[in-house]
Amino acid sequence: MNATENIKKIIVEKPLKLDCGKTISNYPIAYETYGKLNEKRDNAILAFHALSGDQFVTGTNPITNKSGWWSYLVGPNKAVDTNKFFVICANVIGGCMGSYGPNNLDPKTNKKLGINFPVITINDMVNAQYNLLDFFKIDKLFSIMGGSMGGMQVLQFVANYPDKTKTAIPIACTASHSAQNIALNELGRQAIMADNNWEKGDYLNLNNSPDKGLSVARMAAHITYLSQKGLQEKFGRKLQERDDLKFGFDADFQIESYLRHQGSAFVDRFDANSYLYITRAMDYFDLIKQYKGNLSKAFKDSKVKFFIISFTSDWLYPTSENKEIVIALNAAGADVGFIEITSDKGHDSFLLDVPDFLKSIKNFLEANY
Amino acid sequence: MNATENIKKIIVEKPLKLDCGKTISNYPIAYETYGKLNEKRDNAILAFHALSGDQFVTGTNPITNKSGWWSYLVGPNKAVDTNKFFVICANVIGGCMGSYGPNNLDPKTNKKLGINFPVITINDMVNAQYNLLDFFKIDKLFSIMGGSMGGMQVLQFVANYPDKTKTAIPIACTASHSAQNIALNELGRQAIMADNNWEKGDYLNLNNSPDKGLSVARMAAHITYLSQKGLQEKFGRKLQERDDLKFGFDADFQIESYLRHQGSAFVDRFDANSYLYITRAMDYFDLIKQYKGNLSKAFKDSKVKFFIISFTSDWLYPTSENKEIVIALNAAGADVGFIEITSDKGHDSFLLDVPDFLKSIKNFLEANY
Repeated sequence: MNATENIKKIIVEKPLKLDCGKTISNYPIAYETYGKLNEKRDNAILAFHALSGDQFVTGTNPITNKSGWWSYLVGPNKAVDTNKFFVICANVIGGCMGSYGPNNLDPKTNKKLGINFPVITINDMVNAQYNLLDFFKIDKLFSIMGGSMGGMQVLQFVANYPDKTKTAIPIACTASHSAQNIALNELGRQAIMADNNWEKGDYLNLNNSPDKGLSVARMAAHITYLSQKGLQEKFGRKLQERDDLKFGFDADFQIESYLRHQGSAFVDRFDANSYLYITRAMDYFDLIKQYKGNLSKAFKDSKVKFFIISFTSDWLYPTSENKEIVIALNAAGADVGFIEITSDKGHDSFLLDVPDFLKSIKNFLEANY
Repeated sequence: MNATENIKKIIVEKPLKLDCGKTISNYPIAYETYGKLNEKRDNAILAFHALSGDQFVTGTNPITNKSGWWSYLVGPNKAVDTNKFFVICANVIGGCMGSYGPNNLDPKTNKKLGINFPVITINDMVNAQYNLLDFFKIDKLFSIMGGSMGGMQVLQFVANYPDKTKTAIPIACTASHSAQNIALNELGRQAIMADNNWEKGDYLNLNNSPDKGLSVARMAAHITYLSQKGLQEKFGRKLQERDDLKFGFDADFQIESYLRHQGSAFVDRFDANSYLYITRAMDYFDLIKQYKGNLSKAFKDSKVKFFIISFTSDWLYPTSENKEIVIALNAAGADVGFIEITSDKGHDSFLLDVPDFLKSIKNFLEANY
């Protein structure tokens, strides 16, 4: 984990009652912005990041020195044109890029919170980030957008603050986390907690780190972000720097080597306890239950203009789950557009160079600004 | 791991040259039989087990005291009627139920082989099991059948010994392990090897056991054996013995509790090194490459009557991969039937009470005996 002292933060004084019952105050929200807020303050877009994302949407991430996670979509002259729009993104609470999370200190003990950090929800994340509107003196956002867990935050934001955005773009997401997705997240958590170096969550205070467990969790997740067809086309059975099988347990196949790299690279930028907390928040997400089994009530009388996007090869948040949101919005009489983008790149399509996806967002934003 | 001293074994004296180049001899093959071999010795069926299976096809497994893995299919008056047929099943080499595997002793050192066991292939497994035909004095089997890795063995058996079976039933399998399936197996191996108790493969000699790693590997695999729809219908978001979320990392959801149980139960009956070896054999399986890119050559001039079965919700070995086998068999001029069974039970359908599946096999066997 790299130092996060120099990144932008607001300290939220106002108390926030979390869904678990605990109240927090004076907590940090780390954020980044791109483009300029105009005089009318009507060109702001709040982007929400996914499980492993952070506030560094585009350009070079100053902590990892890699491109921001939405570099294909956001930037000057890109689909989300930062010459025109003011893009804000915050690290979610529970995260590890400067916002209030398990690697913060407990002022009472002066130790890292670890798993004494409260279990948070998507609702808590959204309510915490809402404070950025006050900070930037923005009465109403032009748009909110996000994929995967970011899309869940979009849905929750509209439900909580229906008058605070003109448009909303939930991408490759769901209104209620499925059994399979809970299972996959639980697998990741069990991999982390199986690592003795996790130290029952207290590793941060013991100068330890469950790197192997977090790496396995990331490998598991990474497989689910891709598609069968995409994997077959990219890797197939290609061997890794060898002419034939080696009859051992080293990485014979390129896909093995690739996965191992994904696992070990993740450990350098992500905190294992944050992984536990954020996956838990995803699993707890059930907007349908929040509205007593009737999702359309979450969007009742909403004036927000919606644009829902799914991808054909996304088996984690399949089109059917995205369509449930469309159906609920229709039932609520909301203004909603929907597109299923053809792509072999799986769930990760929303992060990649998928021209139809990028063009769809560009057109929607331009038509509505 | 339970004692396996009292189970049936043959000791194969004849040397077997493995694909890795090493030659083995005087090695055990553990087996079980059901029904009686008739006088004409023409009613024998060789069943091949999958990754986590063993020779105890039906009835009560004497080691685990649970039902055999193919109890729905095999037994008196069942689809594979043991009043009529003589069913043989052997534990694969590399396994942990009595056949030659990593928990055997190295006679030179008197230590358990561990990862000094040679890396074996599906071809090696099949060639080792072929010795059972001599042992039972069976010139030609009536049928061979197996699902998943068992199906790969069926294909390999026909390619190696085209005159030694009248019929063949490969179920829910592939002729060439896909990138996604290699990735999923690698995930399981990494989970095991990430466990410090794995001791670089030498845990058997150190009275240790990588239970947590093996448990995580099993959880990962188990998710892939089911289907999104099946999981949603069976578990959905049902809570585990509680009225509401607990805001912690215990198993709130039934699916979490179920997965944890699957992981811990597996550890009691399976060896972690065997898991490494068997998944490696699956990943190495590429019958297309064995026949220089032309799968139909594997079945050239074959007189075997084939019946290929796939399941609609099996995303691990989807219908498309099973159909590739059908296409190759057609190109070879072989006698082949094919059915895609509608089931929401995922890859595991071949082990479960899926009436159309059971009936299809019953009909095929009766029509051809």
